[in-house]
Amino acid sequence: MSEIPYKIYLDEKEIPTAWYNMRADMKNKPAPLLNPGTHQPLTAQELGAVVCDELVKQELDNDNPFTEIPAEILNFYKMYRPSPIVRAYFLERALKTPAKIYYKFEGNNTSGSHKLNSAIAQAYYAKKQGLKGVTTETGAGQWGTALSMACSFFGLDCRVYMVKCSYEQKPFRREVMRTYGASVTPSPSDTTQVGRKILAEHPNTSGSLGCAISEAVEVAVNTEGYRYVLGSVLSQVLLHQSIIGLEAKAALDKYGIKPDIVIGCAGGGSNLGGLIAPFMGEKLRGEADYRIIAVEPASCPSFTRGKYAYDFCDTGMVCPLAKMYTLGSSFIPSANHAGGLRYHGMSSVLSQLYADKYMEARSVEQTSVFEAATTFARVEGTLPAPESSHAIKAAMDEAIKCRESGEAKTILFGLTGTGYFDLYAYQKFNDRQMSDYIPTDAELAESLSHLPKMD
Amino acid sequence: MSEIPYKIYLDEKEIPTAWYNMRADMKNKPAPLLNPGTHQPLTAQELGAVVCDELVKQELDNDNPFTEIPAEILNFYKMYRPSPIVRAYFLERALKTPAKIYYKFEGNNTSGSHKLNSAIAQAYYAKKQGLKGVTTETGAGQWGTALSMACSFFGLDCRVYMVKCSYEQKPFRREVMRTYGASVTPSPSDTTQVGRKILAEHPNTSGSLGCAISEAVEVAVNTEGYRYVLGSVLSQVLLHQSIIGLEAKAALDKYGIKPDIVIGCAGGGSNLGGLIAPFMGEKLRGEADYRIIAVEPASCPSFTRGKYAYDFCDTGMVCPLAKMYTLGSSFIPSANHAGGLRYHGMSSVLSQLYADKYMEARSVEQTSVFEAATTFARVEGTLPAPESSHAIKAAMDEAIKCRESGEAKTILFGLTGTGYFDLYAYQKFNDRQMSDYIPTDAELAESLSHLPKMD
Repeated sequence: MSEIPYKIYLDEKEIPTAWYNMRADMKNKPAPLLNPGTHQPLTAQELGAVVCDELVKQELDNDNPFTEIPAEILNFYKMYRPSPIVRAYFLERALKTPAKIYYKFEGNNTSGSHKLNSAIAQAYYAKKQGLKGVTTETGAGQWGTALSMACSFFGLDCRVYMVKCSYEQKPFRREVMRTYGASVTPSPSDTTQVGRKILAEHPNTSGSLGCAISEAVEVAVNTEGYRYVLGSVLSQVLLHQSIIGLEAKAALDKYGIKPDIVIGCAGGGSNLGGLIAPFMGEKLRGEADYRIIAVEPASCPSFTRGKYAYDFCDTGMVCPLAKMYTLGSSFIPSANHAGGLRYHGMSSVLSQLYADKYMEARSVEQTSVFEAATTFARVEGTLPAPESSHAIKAAMDEAIKCRESGEAKTILFGLTGTGYFDLYAYQKFNDRQMSDYIPTDAELAESLSHLPKMD
Repeated sequence: MSEIPYKIYLDEKEIPTAWYNMRADMKNKPAPLLNPGTHQPLTAQELGAVVCDELVKQELDNDNPFTEIPAEILNFYKMYRPSPIVRAYFLERALKTPAKIYYKFEGNNTSGSHKLNSAIAQAYYAKKQGLKGVTTETGAGQWGTALSMACSFFGLDCRVYMVKCSYEQKPFRREVMRTYGASVTPSPSDTTQVGRKILAEHPNTSGSLGCAISEAVEVAVNTEGYRYVLGSVLSQVLLHQSIIGLEAKAALDKYGIKPDIVIGCAGGGSNLGGLIAPFMGEKLRGEADYRIIAVEPASCPSFTRGKYAYDFCDTGMVCPLAKMYTLGSSFIPSANHAGGLRYHGMSSVLSQLYADKYMEARSVEQTSVFEAATTFARVEGTLPAPESSHAIKAAMDEAIKCRESGEAKTILFGLTGTGYFDLYAYQKFNDRQMSDYIPTDAELAESLSHLPKMD
């Protein structure tokens, strides 16, 4: 079909040896995390009570463009990296589009997603600091699985608070984590103060990410030798995930390919921030231009319908305040939303870039996402995660526009993971029992009315 | 750690362009399939009523060493091939062994296993013959998934008879097949004569592979424009699967690596026959020597405790007779056997090679297999299928022997697939509710007493 192979692999020696920090090239830096009590910028010491010391440095570092990847992490990366860039020849043919579609596939590891890129980094720094273990929350389960793999590798204890409805709907996700030696607790639970409080108020709650975060943080802060780790939203996570974009750009550069459009799904921003990093860097430095598109679910539309404001990161309000596009920390997408990307807020880095118009955002409805996922699975041979399928849907829409306009644009999107543990949702779709949900303006106004009052 | 990378990938252009047929180099050819009524060698015409014409030729071809891979199949192969050879540095370190361990990983595609290599070939020939669709059976579900992907790619109807206990225990396997447009029927079913007969005799049966084969064959021969396809045992399947071994050998040759031991798990023989093909070829031609080890479950030990004889391939006795190592067509492994590889017989090609002492066989018990699987998952980062884990167990045993003897042997094994749909079994193992089962001599004598009487 062309000189470009189906899959472009970098050589192992070409795996990037440093992560790239977009913040260094941003004129308007992301707003700092604030102490929820004083509303003053969080100090390194305050943050160090919750996360590892080295990760505190990375979280607060707005200036240093590159952070060397420690040899132990690079060594682990070789277990599943470099990940391929795939030329979607089969999809192009199915869509009859002149567009050239590429995707960076991060699902070829047992955690099933890109989450492992940051999990192994966070576990490494925890181990280096001499910690005994870490706590975290997980929703769909990809982050919890990735962290359990990373902790198993470094011999760290791993305690995962899993949103109760996921815990019950996805027993096999839980089982993978157990196979990697993690303990998994459905959240809210009676193992924490905040969990007991929520259970007392809402005995039948099916849980939420914000609630599971509160529990995991409480345990980390109150257990000797433990810290809390998070799989998205934080700037350090975007730093680690820059490996996705750096590899993608290096592979495309080899073949002289320059994308016109870069598309990523957006929940808390870990994949999107990682994929776009080097492209955004060039854009920020005025060296090149790219259309960059964030795709989010219509049922949890923080970029497209949220407010750019300081908000709580968790339900229990024990975490720092972050300035971000948010739907309000009490916002929980409807239970019929199957497609992941359920967090009420968005990475502060990406929020600032979006506010400064360096990127676009759009929302898509879940039945159209599963339609795109099914088409993709059938022609490209990979069953995508619902989250990733938001990007597939947008990439397909752009490719169809190219068919109509006759333009042969080059589209790059992030295929963050596989859908092996999402077949309950696929089943609903196959049985035509899946419906869409779009929050009303009144619902959003209500959840946004609880934003913290700032001075 | 070494000059050898963690993963050795061939270039896309280096994917082999012809399959290799071990039979061409065998002095003692495998015994022919027989007509179950006349006990005469099956004619091409008789076989053509069940399988596609081109596949009949491949099935009966004992002479031609190479079959060119059609361009359409090669094109599809590029979707997920070449598959990597992985140097198991992490496993070697964990075992403190001087052995050098490599595995050929076939799980990086949505069907989760090597089965796609033959599924796409069989679907292609069915399409080329102008058929409307194919029927098949599936047990663990990897073959059914692979075939549904292949049929979806070529626009063929795909009807899968899935062993009832798997259908019920693995709803998500079923859902992947449905996502690829296949229809999935639990077997035995009331859609076939043989199914109704078995249900009348055993209303509570949970089904078996042999029974599902009978149903799929019945539907194929009685439906205009349909043929039956099978994922293992047949010589044509081993031919297609030779792509595994050919790629493995080409990749190892690039680095001047010659395995001392080649290890594969063995159910019907599709993976084992494919992985060992070029190595066995050199051995048959006297060009090189390799220790070749087949690993089977202690609960379904056709090589190690079966009889080399003509037997029925299916429960309904509608299929041709095959000469093979068999436990008797009425043999069904205990329900507590979770590890796949449940077929009562073994490929005729491999059976002849084993009878002629070109390879060894050993059996392993399932709790030790899951122990090996868990160790492997934790250090190598891939959750293996239970079937594949039989080979892991044997490879680890050989590596430990090397540690004890101080020998730095080179071990190659086949990692046929991933265990994402086998977490029910992992859960049993994690909960220490898994037990071993070894059939008694009396049980085997009973099932072997029903072999067909030959002249």
